[in-house]
Amino acid sequence: MAAASSEEGAVGPRCHDHSTAMLDVPFLPFCAFLGTLGLLCVAMVGTWCQHWRGGFSLDGSSRTFNWHPVLMVTGLVVLYGAAALVYRIPNTWSGPKLPWKLLHTSLALGAFVLTVLGLAAVFRFHNCQGTPNMYSLHSWMGLGTVLLFSCQWAAGFGAFLLPWAPAWLRALYKPIHVFFGSTILMLSVASCVSGINEKLFFSLKNGTTEYKLLPAEAVFANTLGLLILIFGVLVVAALARPSWKRPDSDSLDSRQ
Amino acid sequence: MAAASSEEGAVGPRCHDHSTAMLDVPFLPFCAFLGTLGLLCVAMVGTWCQHWRGGFSLDGSSRTFNWHPVLMVTGLVVLYGAAALVYRIPNTWSGPKLPWKLLHTSLALGAFVLTVLGLAAVFRFHNCQGTPNMYSLHSWMGLGTVLLFSCQWAAGFGAFLLPWAPAWLRALYKPIHVFFGSTILMLSVASCVSGINEKLFFSLKNGTTEYKLLPAEAVFANTLGLLILIFGVLVVAALARPSWKRPDSDSLDSRQ
Repeated sequence: MAAASSEEGAVGPRCHDHSTAMLDVPFLPFCAFLGTLGLLCVAMVGTWCQHWRGGFSLDGSSRTFNWHPVLMVTGLVVLYGAAALVYRIPNTWSGPKLPWKLLHTSLALGAFVLTVLGLAAVFRFHNCQGTPNMYSLHSWMGLGTVLLFSCQWAAGFGAFLLPWAPAWLRALYKPIHVFFGSTILMLSVASCVSGINEKLFFSLKNGTTEYKLLPAEAVFANTLGLLILIFGVLVVAALARPSWKRPDSDSLDSRQ
Repeated sequence: MAAASSEEGAVGPRCHDHSTAMLDVPFLPFCAFLGTLGLLCVAMVGTWCQHWRGGFSLDGSSRTFNWHPVLMVTGLVVLYGAAALVYRIPNTWSGPKLPWKLLHTSLALGAFVLTVLGLAAVFRFHNCQGTPNMYSLHSWMGLGTVLLFSCQWAAGFGAFLLPWAPAWLRALYKPIHVFFGSTILMLSVASCVSGINEKLFFSLKNGTTEYKLLPAEAVFANTLGLLILIFGVLVVAALARPSWKRPDSDSLDSRQ
């Protein structure tokens, strides 16, 4: 980290992006904190669905729906965030880039598979209950996010992993890939938060469990939503921080 | 723009943040597009509340609530976005900075006043209807966003406009102010989207106007939600784009 800072100092003040300089901590402890926060989000969404929403099944009931929040938070937020941060690990900055590319694309593929399973869960639930699909703003935003993610993965694979992709294409596409990397995470987080809000209004409407009376489930799931927001903001901040970016990534990326 | 690009090239490739280089257009036309998109969002949220939700009043009914989405979208998203982009206008890069600081803080203050009025509208509606305040995830996230915004404005005023604020304090606080500038906008957008989603579930539940049957109002308000998302993503992207940032802003900012 010290080396990166002095390198930035050498090329002048404009090179230092102050928008993220506030996070004056080394990457790895920050990353460990993010990992803990991500695992906490996964544990909490699982606990919510298991403890308050009846657990999990594949029978088309609301217990099938419960896979939806768990898989979306795990795939489209936490595992996606981990995939996005791979190139910020200082160990990736020297030596061959290919193993790290494979790790990045594998984590992203894992995130995508969980996301598709999460979509399958809610579509199966709706179809079994006779509820139309794709009518709420949450569903429009969520499906739009997943479609963007699928384009992102396919284009990333084509441009950066197929050996015959020309260097000019990689150089042209890379900033687009990086931009949509952060954007998709922001959209994922907004989708999760609107989905948790919507689910609580659906579920908590009887007697003492009314959402507006703030029963324990509401406090728990609201807190989960806020933690997901904080996780997303911190990942996007880490991605934007200049001194955490892989040095001279252009030339290495184009060459490999 | 050309000058800024060549200047960046001179200090080496690390200096160029590729995450936003995809937007290879001049700032002012992009800004005009953003302004049009912002005005469209304001017009659409006004039309939604006027045409489908019964219009506006101050009598504590749902027509009082209708001020809430209009004021939040206008203040916390569109006017806030305009305030955030002031220092990206190339005209601000030469000459005294104080008039632009006053414009930035005035727009932000205007956004904050509209936001507080928007909160007052929903609190008055809830109180008149006997509905508890501050129970949904939308309300937690929204109030958290407004509290962050109030701290941001007060700290920005204290550090950058009070003439006796020391230069070291300005230099220390500036990256924090910039970071929270984008973060608050992302949180505002997520709050708006979850609020629109929630309102549609509340309002569209009878016969042919059920949300799940996607009546015209649902399509209109869902589209509004997506346009707000696009507006927020484009403003954050414009803020992050290195060649649109005010050159040597450190020294100027500390001196003035």
